[in-house]
Formats: sequence, C-alpha cells, structure tokens
Amino acid sequence: MLLQGTVVADAETVVEDGAVVVEGDEIVAVGDREELVETYSGHERAEYDLLAPGVVGGHVHSVQSLGRGIADDTALLDWLFDYVLPMESSLDAEGMRVAAELGYLELLESGVTTAIDHLSVRHADEAFEAAGELGVRARMGKVLMDTESPDGLLEDTREGLDETERLIRKYHGTHGGRIQYAVTPRFAVSCTEECLRGSRELADEYDGVRIHTHASENRDEVETVEERTGRRNIHWLDEVGLTGEDVVLAHCIWTDESEREVLAETGTHVTYCPSSNMKLASGIAPIVDYVDRGINVALGNDGPPCNNTLDPFTEMRQASLLQKVEHLDPTTTPAQLVFEMATENGARAAGFENVGRLRPGWKADVVGLTTDVTRAVPLHDVFSHLVFSAHGDDVEFTMVNGDVVYEDGELRTGDAEAIRQRAREYELPISAE
Amino acid sequence: MLLQGTVVADAETVVEDGAVVVEGDEIVAVGDREELVETYSGHERAEYDLLAPGVVGGHVHSVQSLGRGIADDTALLDWLFDYVLPMESSLDAEGMRVAAELGYLELLESGVTTAIDHLSVRHADEAFEAAGELGVRARMGKVLMDTESPDGLLEDTREGLDETERLIRKYHGTHGGRIQYAVTPRFAVSCTEECLRGSRELADEYDGVRIHTHASENRDEVETVEERTGRRNIHWLDEVGLTGEDVVLAHCIWTDESEREVLAETGTHVTYCPSSNMKLASGIAPIVDYVDRGINVALGNDGPPCNNTLDPFTEMRQASLLQKVEHLDPTTTPAQLVFEMATENGARAAGFENVGRLRPGWKADVVGLTTDVTRAVPLHDVFSHLVFSAHGDDVEFTMVNGDVVYEDGELRTGDAEAIRQRAREYELPISAE
Repeated sequence: MLLQGTVVADAETVVEDGAVVVEGDEIVAVGDREELVETYSGHERAEYDLLAPGVVGGHVHSVQSLGRGIADDTALLDWLFDYVLPMESSLDAEGMRVAAELGYLELLESGVTTAIDHLSVRHADEAFEAAGELGVRARMGKVLMDTESPDGLLEDTREGLDETERLIRKYHGTHGGRIQYAVTPRFAVSCTEECLRGSRELADEYDGVRIHTHASENRDEVETVEERTGRRNIHWLDEVGLTGEDVVLAHCIWTDESEREVLAETGTHVTYCPSSNMKLASGIAPIVDYVDRGINVALGNDGPPCNNTLDPFTEMRQASLLQKVEHLDPTTTPAQLVFEMATENGARAAGFENVGRLRPGWKADVVGLTTDVTRAVPLHDVFSHLVFSAHGDDVEFTMVNGDVVYEDGELRTGDAEAIRQRAREYELPISAE
Repeated sequence: MLLQGTVVADAETVVEDGAVVVEGDEIVAVGDREELVETYSGHERAEYDLLAPGVVGGHVHSVQSLGRGIADDTALLDWLFDYVLPMESSLDAEGMRVAAELGYLELLESGVTTAIDHLSVRHADEAFEAAGELGVRARMGKVLMDTESPDGLLEDTREGLDETERLIRKYHGTHGGRIQYAVTPRFAVSCTEECLRGSRELADEYDGVRIHTHASENRDEVETVEERTGRRNIHWLDEVGLTGEDVVLAHCIWTDESEREVLAETGTHVTYCPSSNMKLASGIAPIVDYVDRGINVALGNDGPPCNNTLDPFTEMRQASLLQKVEHLDPTTTPAQLVFEMATENGARAAGFENVGRLRPGWKADVVGLTTDVTRAVPLHDVFSHLVFSAHGDDVEFTMVNGDVVYEDGELRTGDAEAIRQRAREYELPISAE
C-alpha cells in the first residue's frame, strides 16, 4: 500500500508532499511522493492530509470502559472502593469482552495503535481475544491482587501467578508478535512481596515478557507502602525486582530524589497520565525532571472512569499544558517532545522494537488524519497542530502491523455499532446514582 | 420549530424524552415530547440525542484566529510582543474580516452561541459585520491601547474613545439585540487613567453598554500596575470605575484577599480561561474561592494563539480538571457547576437577559448534540458526559436567537469552506519560524 500526504515521520522529521510505502507488516519506504509513486507504481494508493506514526497509549485500562462517567467528582477512595473495583469485580466474561472491545474501538478510531493495557483479575482471556481480533498492538496482562483487595478481586498468590503463566503461554507473542504479555501486579499496596517477586520471576523466565504496574500515584499509597515495608515505594519496587528496562511504572507522581535516581539508573519507563492525575487530583508528576534525567517518559490516558475519553490528542495537549502551568514556564514540554512521548517513547516503554516512527524497516503502524477542519486552519506547524489542536475525530485511517483496522469512519475488524450497542445494553451492577 | 431529544434545560434540570418549542427568537415551551408534539403539531420538527443551551464563550479573541499555532511553546513576552501584537497590528481590514469569520465559524460549529469578544484596535467594523452576518450572539468591542503599546496599536486616547462611541452608535443593539457593545480597554498596563475613566463614562452614557478587559492574568502585569499607580490591579480598576455588575474581567489569577473582596462586593464578573492560563503558564485562577464568595464565574477559551482551539467542551473539561489537581480534591468544581459557568453564568457576564437556559420565555439559543459516538458509551450522566467526554464535533445543530446557524455539518449563514480557504491563503507578515 502506498499512503500519500504530509509525512510526520517522527518528532523531528516532516516530509511535505511525501509518501509511506507498506508491504506486509513493514514500512519499506518513506520519502518524496512523486518518486515513490513511480517506484511503487503497482501499489494500492490512499491519500490523507497528514500521515503519522500510530500513537502509543502508555497506560490504559481498556476493561474499565463500561465505567465511563460512573464516579465523576467523587473522592478518591470512594471512586476506587465504591465504584471502580466493584465494577471490575462484577464484570462477567461477557462484560469483560464488551468493555475491552469498547476500549479498543475507541483507541483505534482515535489513532492509538499500541496500548499498554492493564486488565483485571478475572476473564483476561476475553481482552486478549478482543485485542487479537480488533487488531490493536498490545502489551497486556491480567492483574494480580493478593492482599488488601476487595472480595471478588482478592486472589491466592500462587493461583494468580499460575494464571499469569497460563496466559503467557497462550497469548504472548501471538498475532505475529502484535500481542505481548506484561505481568501486571496492580500496585504495591495490593500485592504481597511473594507476588511482586513472583512477577519478576515470570518476566525473567519468558523471553520478551515485561512488567507493568502503578507506582506512587497517590500520597496515601506511598505512605501505606512505607509503613508496611519501611521503604519508599520505588525503593521497595526496586528491591523486589520491579524496576528495570522491562518495567513500566504508571504515574510516579510522589517520588523523592533518591527514587528518581533509581528510576534513571535502572532504565525504568514512566507513563505520564496528566488528565487522570488531574481528574483524580492525584498531583502533578515531575515530568520535566524525569526528562532531564533521561528517564523514558510515555503518555497514557488511563481509563474512562478517571479520564472519560481515550483520545490520545487530548492527552498530548494536556501533557504539555499541565507542565507549563506547574513550572510557570510556557516553553517547557514543547509539542515535539510530547509527540515523541506519545509515539516512540511509548513504543520503547511497551517493548516493541521498530515501532513508533515511520521509517523503512519499521512496523507499519500508521495513522492518516484530515486537516480539513476549522481547528486546523491556519496550520503553521504540524507538531503544534497535532499536540495542541488536533482531536481523535480527525483520524480517518489507522493501520496496525500493516493491516488496515479503521478507514472512512468504519472499523474494519469488527462492527463498531454492535460493540457500542452491547456496551449500552450491558447492565453494570453498580450505578452512578 | 419543535426540537426533540433529551433536554438538558439548565445545570439542574434534565427532561428525558423531551422537547423544546421555538417561535421567533424565543423558546415557548420545554417539556415532555409527546405532549408538546400534540400541542404544537404544526411545527417543523428535528431530533437530536441531547438538546442543551448554547455555550457562552466568556472571553474570546476571534480576530486572533489567524494566529493559531504561530507562537506555541514560546516565552510570554516573546509570545505577546514578537507574535500576537505584531499580528494584530498587521491585519488589514480583509485580514480582520477573515480572522473574525474563522473565529465565529469555529465557535458556532462547536456549540458556542454567545461570545464576549475582545477585538483589536483597528478594523473593528469587520468583526461586527461578520458577527452580524454569521449569526453569533456577541458582546464585543474594539480594543483601546493608549500607552505602553507597540506602534500600529498605540492610539491617541481621545481618538480611541471617539471611535468606540462611533461603533456603539453604529452596532450596539443591532440584529434584534443580538449584537451588544463592550467598551474594551486591553488591560491596565496599556491604558492611561484617562482611557480607563473614559471607558466607564461611555458605558454609563449608553444604555446596555458594558465593559470587558483583562485583569491580573500575569505577575508582571500586576507588578507594573502597582509600580505605576501604587495600587493592586483590582483596586486600581475599581478606583477608575472598571468594576461592577456591567464589567467582565478575564483571568483574575493574581488577586489578593482585599481584591477578591472588591470583586465580590461590586458584582464584577470573572472569566476563567483554564487552557490559556495553562498554556501561557500564567497560573491557576482561584476559582473555588471565587465561587465560594458568590462571584459570578464564566468560562472562556481566549484566543487560538494561546489555546489553539475554541472548542468549549475542551474548556469545560479543563475548567474542572485544573481546579481538582490544584486543590488535590477530586470533588471540587464538579460537572454541573462547570456546565453552569459555561451557560447561564456566561450569559450573565455577557449581560444578555434570558439567555443560558432552555425555558419558556428565554431566548432560543440551543445546541443539538449526538451521543452516537464511542466516547458517549455508556452514558451514565449527561452532565458528566458534556463536561468530561463530549467535544465540539458532537454538535450537529446550533440555533442562535431562533435562527438555525449550523445544521448537518454545514454553516447555514455563510460558506464555511470559503472562510477556511481565505484563512489558509491570507499571508500573515509574521511566521512561526
């Protein structure tokens, strides 16, 4: 396939009047449109105003999609214990399937091609099947919770790790490597030391399996871990093996100097979720400092109960604006840096090689966007446009691993209207009232 | 016209399976669909998933629209003196017309029916003509700058006030009262005492004319005013007559206790512009405190050079999220309060009577939105949806003062594609490079 348009190949490279040529699951050429049209004259063609690497959702809870709007404007502990955890606990296999499909639909139609996806304790198979079918690239895993967890989610340590191992064997590396496993302890508060160490063992045992968890999102969380272990949260995670180049920690808001040194030294990836951090009033992550230290920062939307939309462009905008006001510095966290976080940094955190840029030999994860919308007029700078003005609704085309998954307003890998309808009809046992 | 759908009549009232009946420029009935369809059987009908009051943009710079993205990620003074003011200064009459039309187009298609619009020093007629023609309800005025201003914008005090008076006589109260004048000194820094006092005199002399200015957006601004006048900014404005129930002050970030008392006692309106305040790193306005004091708080997008989009839903979301993270309190500034700010509070600030709610006898400013989008699934609460998930792209219908101005993706009062094309082709003398 030969895709034509202004090519935003990565955070530094723009090819006006360019093209991207895809064969199989790979990009084989990026360059001048005229030359490529001549060289690859036999390829099917399509044209979009802008072509960009697919966005990476660096921390997502697809299976919380049915909880969109159920607990807005509520205190954090009520939010978690009265709404979100009961919702997760209550979902049967069908609910989990519906929720995951709804989440992946929203991601794919708004330009997210890769997700680092935090599932729930039970029915993870449903999400793996949905991701495989709908075509998102995913680093995903079942959640482990073996202490301090509500009934319905609390699980025996060994059973949780065994189930994780079953899922690794069944799904890791499937769909041409598009689906990869992340061992996913929920956070240090709800996991025993045995569970956390067991997570590391599994990640080491299986080639390419990585680790994804929440860390230091909330001040109470950090205090609880310190009371229980005598250590700051990141030090505790480091001690039990949950730092390193194969680990993604979501949030990392409440970290001190020594913890940040650990993150930098170990090459641990951090996912910044600005809208979620704002809406849950968690705090503002020290992203400028992380970037200065060379820590790899990805961007994430978190889940619909704490953000309400999974639109990655809303999140890019928020990522920059929140740092600017925090530092009272309008020059910080500029558009190109945010674009990098949302694409190649995210892919690095997710552990997918050759993903996150448009260049020959890299995986064909491509989005096509229209600029024929008022918010794109005038268009002085593509990075500024993508980060500060664009919206997921501008996405007209999404390709993952060489497959067209969304085109002309239609999901090509499933029935979007049927997914939405099943989600509307699924009755959650808890309500927003 | 009889509009059917779930009616969000105001921040407290939702009528499921409802209808709104419009005759002339007024709403004549709001209620149960079945009853109203029977009573008003002869009326033309339309149906939308949600019907809501038109949103009020409480502080907008429509004529800065051509500067979208020209100065992102730059320091504030560079932003203002190297880009935004030179751009305003450089616009000829045609540029001002193109910019205003682009701004009103974006507002109307994303559900804003009323704007409090800060024009520029010259060519204000172009914006008045554009607003009249495209159909937005506006409280608008030419800018006054008679000191500390760059060439091309600096104006003789008397000339500026005389030109203001000419514009008042020509446009104030036209289009059935839809266009109203706001005397618009830019801010205390760029206006002499004579100019500020002259603004008050004009507002008092002409019935229904009000005042709109910027105040205490920036710490340097506040310091400059204090050095020059020996008073805190709001005290200075109060002394020269620029507080009161007919005054809208945009921003009000850097105010102290005594200034806030003045705002509350005088009934001065404040417009909160969260995205602009974040992007320019101005600071976080003390909105929770203002609301507690009973100050009327409206919401504004400011202009495309400091926000990039005029989408009011993005701004509603931001309004809540920014206060939540500032106060580390997820319950503050909830959806219904934000919806109120964006509708009836804005209309009150703009000084339009019977605008901002859907109720009999009120002006017919109505928007119709679709919920057939993934971000609206599931839809547990309409206010939560409108504030945290919805986007201007969901707007399918906009009516102002009883006239349909936007419908089926088309502007009914002008040629949207021609407006966009003229904006693309207009060459600004400054660039983003």
